[in-house]
Amino acid sequence: MNASLFGFLEEVLPDHEVYGVLNGLQGLAEDRLVPLAPSTVERHRQVSEMPGAWLGSGRWPAREEDFEGYAINLKNRGVQGLALIGGNGTMWACLRLERAARRVGHELAVIGIPKTVDNDLAETDHAPGFGSAARFVATAVRDVGKDLESMRNFEAVRVLETMGRNVGWLAVSGSYLKEYPEDPPHLIYVPEREFAQDEFLKEVKETHEAYGYAVVVVSEGLRGRAKSVSGEHLKSPLLGGVSRELAQLVGEELGLPARGELLGMVQRSCSLAVSKRDREEARLLGTKAAGLMRARVSGVMLSLKRRPSSSYELEIRCVPLDRVAGVERPLPEDWLWVPGGSVPEEFRKWLEPLIGEDLSPYPANLSAQEATWKT
Amino acid sequence: MNASLFGFLEEVLPDHEVYGVLNGLQGLAEDRLVPLAPSTVERHRQVSEMPGAWLGSGRWPAREEDFEGYAINLKNRGVQGLALIGGNGTMWACLRLERAARRVGHELAVIGIPKTVDNDLAETDHAPGFGSAARFVATAVRDVGKDLESMRNFEAVRVLETMGRNVGWLAVSGSYLKEYPEDPPHLIYVPEREFAQDEFLKEVKETHEAYGYAVVVVSEGLRGRAKSVSGEHLKSPLLGGVSRELAQLVGEELGLPARGELLGMVQRSCSLAVSKRDREEARLLGTKAAGLMRARVSGVMLSLKRRPSSSYELEIRCVPLDRVAGVERPLPEDWLWVPGGSVPEEFRKWLEPLIGEDLSPYPANLSAQEATWKT
Repeated sequence: MNASLFGFLEEVLPDHEVYGVLNGLQGLAEDRLVPLAPSTVERHRQVSEMPGAWLGSGRWPAREEDFEGYAINLKNRGVQGLALIGGNGTMWACLRLERAARRVGHELAVIGIPKTVDNDLAETDHAPGFGSAARFVATAVRDVGKDLESMRNFEAVRVLETMGRNVGWLAVSGSYLKEYPEDPPHLIYVPEREFAQDEFLKEVKETHEAYGYAVVVVSEGLRGRAKSVSGEHLKSPLLGGVSRELAQLVGEELGLPARGELLGMVQRSCSLAVSKRDREEARLLGTKAAGLMRARVSGVMLSLKRRPSSSYELEIRCVPLDRVAGVERPLPEDWLWVPGGSVPEEFRKWLEPLIGEDLSPYPANLSAQEATWKT
Repeated sequence: MNASLFGFLEEVLPDHEVYGVLNGLQGLAEDRLVPLAPSTVERHRQVSEMPGAWLGSGRWPAREEDFEGYAINLKNRGVQGLALIGGNGTMWACLRLERAARRVGHELAVIGIPKTVDNDLAETDHAPGFGSAARFVATAVRDVGKDLESMRNFEAVRVLETMGRNVGWLAVSGSYLKEYPEDPPHLIYVPEREFAQDEFLKEVKETHEAYGYAVVVVSEGLRGRAKSVSGEHLKSPLLGGVSRELAQLVGEELGLPARGELLGMVQRSCSLAVSKRDREEARLLGTKAAGLMRARVSGVMLSLKRRPSSSYELEIRCVPLDRVAGVERPLPEDWLWVPGGSVPEEFRKWLEPLIGEDLSPYPANLSAQEATWKT
């Protein structure tokens, strides 16, 4: 978020009057715009490396009919362009604002800059934020998995929960550093596939029998059949804390010691896991947005497009907002995790430049090799 | 753990027959010793950078009377020295084994190598493992805190839970990157001070009123007065999930949106947070242990002692095991967190060389400065 903001400011501050909208739509609704002076570019460079949102983020319940008011206010203030940084909700707001501006006769240039750790924005190869979050998840799953491998004589099952309310991009990234079937994670469950309790329990049991422990990764937004009190199967989202529920289930149904663990907010903010390319791309999108705004382009989201080549080359394109707003972007069917399988090779190749090329799997623990040693 | 093991092997493998004991005391009890051949030193270098324990870790319920059996077995096998790596429980086992060996007439050299992320070992400046875990906690608290600062218009209180069953070293490390009173974390609660619910609620309320949000850090091993159903105050440990309990309490009693979050197992295994000095010291202790074992030293734990000088210089000493086993090491009284106060400067200076000198606080969010901007 802040890297894109910095890229934008770097480009426009020298010769434009620029305001920061505090807390997203809330700032538009409450007219909380603060002037950003050219002299503060150095400060912006400093904040560009921070997690969070320097201008504050928002969760404002804007209604369709509120946007004309925002547009009139911006017109009265003489604001000629507005860039918003975020995910699906933000692109929805950009679209509404653009249309409202036209209705009130204001030629406001509205540009959406993609940013989401969930990576659920359509029409772009990936969204800034995702590469760094994936880097955290991939290393955390490898590291916690390796730690649990050491302890499998007294701990059996760990269920790690990643972000991803509708999609499993981050959960599947947890397999990036897996080399052999016996390496953790052993099982991954994503919202793209309906969760089935009986299959889950069967797969955990088989994994534990095969390797002596099981590391399971789940998206927070897992959907599926959870057993109700009456014994019926419900089809309902299990949002939030699903890892703890599943760990409890494993304990009750399989009698194995199991722990649920949320990777938590640190997965989207951990400065130690920032992918340099991710940050650089975010900044580049900000700069590009500023250039387009100068050219009076409006009603688009910037999109990253990979050139078909063996090396990683990107071009930045514009996508009409109405092809993005409200559209989900699930994992492709053949990148979904297959129980007992390994990381789809195409997914690993796609992820490698985003997550960083300096990560590698660990060798197995010696205690896990004892059988081999004895022969 | 693995870095110390590597330091040890590097030193003894060339001219000794060396066995790895799998899963700690369990390996002694079950005679699971595997030969470590000189040709595998390269492999050991590779595993020295892994979290967890290459030989497997243990939680074996050894009784006082079991140790003579272990000692007899080691004597029969012709084992002349044994190094164990770990915390308080490990030092207790070293002491028991050394005494048992003498009773059965075996001149086994027993050496304890300190390793604990909790940092609760007595008679050493610090224990390997702690510096890296502190690095994770300090950055995670800063990063999650900064993220929450962006969201304080819709989220109010976050309670972050660190490891530390008996001591607050890791929790207080969460304040390392705090610069001003308004920076997160705002409140820290550690096992060294009895937890009082009413004071906690009062402090959270005041913090929220002052800064618009509150970031609280708690040790998992918090002890104190929790309200019972009958309204009485109980003095009981609140081990495990205390952050969620406290977040719930804040919601119910203060009506503020609050979330508890465990930093989890990743804080002790995160490879991205490894402090280079921490790993190097761990390796050095392994090498030193091997040297002492050659010299037939026994019944000691290695200890790190800081030389009194402005730069960071260490010497490695030996401490009799009976001065360490079963002894806790709480935070010094004047390094404890004072509500509303800042990081004790002496603590920060002590921690800096262990955690790494490349970390710095973030500037404040612009939205947090709005009042200033408007004046």
